[in-house]
Amino acid sequence: MRPTLIAVLFVVFSVSTSEAQDAAMAAADTYRQAHEQQILEEVFDFLALPNNAADRDDILVNAEHIVALLEARGAEARILEAGDSLPAVYGEILTPGATRTVMFYAHYDGQPALPENWTYPPFEPVMLSGRIDAGGEPVDWQGNDTVDPDWRIYARSASDDKSPIVALLTAIDALRAANIPLGVNIKFFFEGEEEAGSPNMHTMLEAHRGLLTADFWVLADGPVDPRGDPRIVLGVRGVTSMQLTVHGASRDLHSGHYGNVAPNPGARLAHLIASMRAPDGRVLINGFYDGVPAPSDAALALTESGAYDEDGLVSEPGIAGVEWGPGASYGEAVMVPALNVLGLSSGGVGDATRNAIPASATAAIGFRMVPGQTIPRIREQVTAHVESQGYLILDRPPTADERLAHPRIAEIHWSTSGYPAAVTQAEHPDVIRLTDLVASTSDRPVRVVPILGGSLPLAPIVDVLDVPFAIVPMVNPDNAQHAPDENLRVGHLWDGIRLYAVLMADDWED
Amino acid sequence: MRPTLIAVLFVVFSVSTSEAQDAAMAAADTYRQAHEQQILEEVFDFLALPNNAADRDDILVNAEHIVALLEARGAEARILEAGDSLPAVYGEILTPGATRTVMFYAHYDGQPALPENWTYPPFEPVMLSGRIDAGGEPVDWQGNDTVDPDWRIYARSASDDKSPIVALLTAIDALRAANIPLGVNIKFFFEGEEEAGSPNMHTMLEAHRGLLTADFWVLADGPVDPRGDPRIVLGVRGVTSMQLTVHGASRDLHSGHYGNVAPNPGARLAHLIASMRAPDGRVLINGFYDGVPAPSDAALALTESGAYDEDGLVSEPGIAGVEWGPGASYGEAVMVPALNVLGLSSGGVGDATRNAIPASATAAIGFRMVPGQTIPRIREQVTAHVESQGYLILDRPPTADERLAHPRIAEIHWSTSGYPAAVTQAEHPDVIRLTDLVASTSDRPVRVVPILGGSLPLAPIVDVLDVPFAIVPMVNPDNAQHAPDENLRVGHLWDGIRLYAVLMADDWED
Repeated sequence: MRPTLIAVLFVVFSVSTSEAQDAAMAAADTYRQAHEQQILEEVFDFLALPNNAADRDDILVNAEHIVALLEARGAEARILEAGDSLPAVYGEILTPGATRTVMFYAHYDGQPALPENWTYPPFEPVMLSGRIDAGGEPVDWQGNDTVDPDWRIYARSASDDKSPIVALLTAIDALRAANIPLGVNIKFFFEGEEEAGSPNMHTMLEAHRGLLTADFWVLADGPVDPRGDPRIVLGVRGVTSMQLTVHGASRDLHSGHYGNVAPNPGARLAHLIASMRAPDGRVLINGFYDGVPAPSDAALALTESGAYDEDGLVSEPGIAGVEWGPGASYGEAVMVPALNVLGLSSGGVGDATRNAIPASATAAIGFRMVPGQTIPRIREQVTAHVESQGYLILDRPPTADERLAHPRIAEIHWSTSGYPAAVTQAEHPDVIRLTDLVASTSDRPVRVVPILGGSLPLAPIVDVLDVPFAIVPMVNPDNAQHAPDENLRVGHLWDGIRLYAVLMADDWED
Repeated sequence: MRPTLIAVLFVVFSVSTSEAQDAAMAAADTYRQAHEQQILEEVFDFLALPNNAADRDDILVNAEHIVALLEARGAEARILEAGDSLPAVYGEILTPGATRTVMFYAHYDGQPALPENWTYPPFEPVMLSGRIDAGGEPVDWQGNDTVDPDWRIYARSASDDKSPIVALLTAIDALRAANIPLGVNIKFFFEGEEEAGSPNMHTMLEAHRGLLTADFWVLADGPVDPRGDPRIVLGVRGVTSMQLTVHGASRDLHSGHYGNVAPNPGARLAHLIASMRAPDGRVLINGFYDGVPAPSDAALALTESGAYDEDGLVSEPGIAGVEWGPGASYGEAVMVPALNVLGLSSGGVGDATRNAIPASATAAIGFRMVPGQTIPRIREQVTAHVESQGYLILDRPPTADERLAHPRIAEIHWSTSGYPAAVTQAEHPDVIRLTDLVASTSDRPVRVVPILGGSLPLAPIVDVLDVPFAIVPMVNPDNAQHAPDENLRVGHLWDGIRLYAVLMADDWED
């Protein structure tokens, strides 16, 4: 129950609430021990409902199931839609005397699951004695007096992201059973199209702004730290991408008769890429870092205190050192925007090599953005950069006349998907409070991640609602999310009930 | 019969032999007119013999057929082999009083031919009234008194390269019929594996140096100038290639979680390519141009006088201007060595784009060399250059330990094929003489090409025998060599007989 290093840094801001937290945890543990079979039944029933976001009927069954679960807790619950979105489930429990409101987010849709790739059918949840690849076998959990926390539930969405919904609702049950009042007004927003990229999140938050606003959003999604420690994630990078094609002659040409004569699209593309990105990852495009604030002291302090599993992340995939340099940590590297060459294609290599100068060369280039950057501005900057290298820019192949009139022609197509970054400041008082609360639930250090290198479409929480948020996960890191044989370690479900009970019992007042 | 521009430049060196040349041409024309059926029968019989170099038995049938053709002209003829080469045919006719010896080269093997892609079977030669794509239909050439020079013979190797063999032998027949003595000792070397890349040319010339040496080699191969003018080609660029792979992490990594963290192989490869080749084609590798002489005044003069069809070569494939610059002509661009990016491959582009940093990126890079460059030295220079960019160079993928110990790792594989350049100096007195002789056979300008951009394995003629050479072609440019429906325009065969008769009647003395 010791506070993390970072929590120590900010201990002057935090209110000592250890007694209340201990009571909430005790309530969670007591209730859970007395109702393990019932809790697991709720999990199993929920996991038996197929939930591919591509099937609206299945999604609706899930949504109605959740409405019933919420109503069983006396929550006011309803289905929300916006535009052509799939149904989301909204619920709220007002707390007399509470001054603050916390939104708990999770999603109930799951990645597609091909049964032939699974050991057990993805929508027939099964309890195993351990990981399948460690010899786990089915166990009769309903006929057993005690449930081993190392048992695992195998099913699609066991971890991503149905079990957090059950943990949240069970936390309410547990507090009520112990007569511990909720410390805040609680809202729930359970999304049904997260795995489809949350295409309507912006519209949804705009359409139901009054219901969906809160003082803080807690996102119950994703796994805890890979080292097994509790984790709080304060942000995600944004993402966009482009296809950049350099055109040469109108057809492939003999590399002897045309070497030094025809433009070489592969070499030109290489020069373009080299002009955009230094060997250490620094982006050389004019204005790229404009409006991008330097990482805050608080964020850097989190990084230095072990927010990221530096050693595991770097050495495991055979990397001699972090590219961003010199001497940067993993954390420093993902706190800045990135330009990634995702693909290159021109002519043929290996056995497909021909003595020909290809007519064109294409790069797929991805951008990971941080707050302060927008997709429209990235597009403008890239366009201006490529033009500054002497290129005519088209959004289609050049005509014969254009080829003869312009020595350098590039074709650019931007991805229609993508979204900006979303970050809550590490110094935010609610983050300090949240860190303290999470720290109270574990004797392991809380890993507070200032920003994930990856991307999630969380920007509307900030851009539409202007609400701070944090991802506060509960599930095991080895849960195989998005893959066959997704699973949940039962002990992580128990810990999740305790974690969310603590967050709900607190008054979140500074 | 006017001399070319270039011949004019060197007219002081050339001996006026126009009377002798007129006599040789008249002999060729007279003989041909009287023996058109017989000449064409010889062509048709020869083309009916399948000649894919992959079939040794078929090749041997061809070789023995040629030996018989040579012996019918009283030439001493024999089959030559060297190492595991396919048979080559050697023949010689000594000329009393001649001081010089000219070797006439051609090859009798052909590219593979898939009958299903041909309009008529490739080894059942047929005479058509014109080009197939212009409505040419079979004609009864054997039952016709006159043969139209625009008729075309369709068969594999009609142009590449059996008809020049018949033209050479017919030229001898014609001179004899007119009692015009040969002016030189004549040797013939008819190769049987040119389309397989002449893999044993070096060994062959070393093994039979005494037979195969001469004062000059005339290569009867390839088409005349695309503008329809007579052509003399004085050299070819050499060729070699490499596969260059930059390794990153041991597997593809999430572009969000690893953007700026994992090395980006595509971006690194771009920097490597950009470090090797300037945007105008100039090679930046240390020492690359060492030992490469500047183009001679004579070669530049040939280029300026229209050696290459500048307009057609550049504008036809949609090129706004020659890459080598500034203001370089096509000829200047191919007279210098070239580094060509033939292929790029990394991850995926377009629909295959994934949000992943690929584990590696590969470029196929080709080099076109000029005299003064060797493949071993190119390899050394490239290796030193890549090392100078901080790379460990391997000829296999790195081990796990190597990945962690070396931040930059490149894997290089060199092509096992390839050969150096071969060029005869434009100022060589025999070239002046030859140009004059060829010019005397046509009222069109002779296009003397100092060097072809493409490559042929001719280096052994220079490196082993130290003999000057020139390619002196006769066939039509639209012959579809290497492709289905290869053909020969009959008028070009008639011109070829005249051309080679002139070369044989001359004494080649300065």
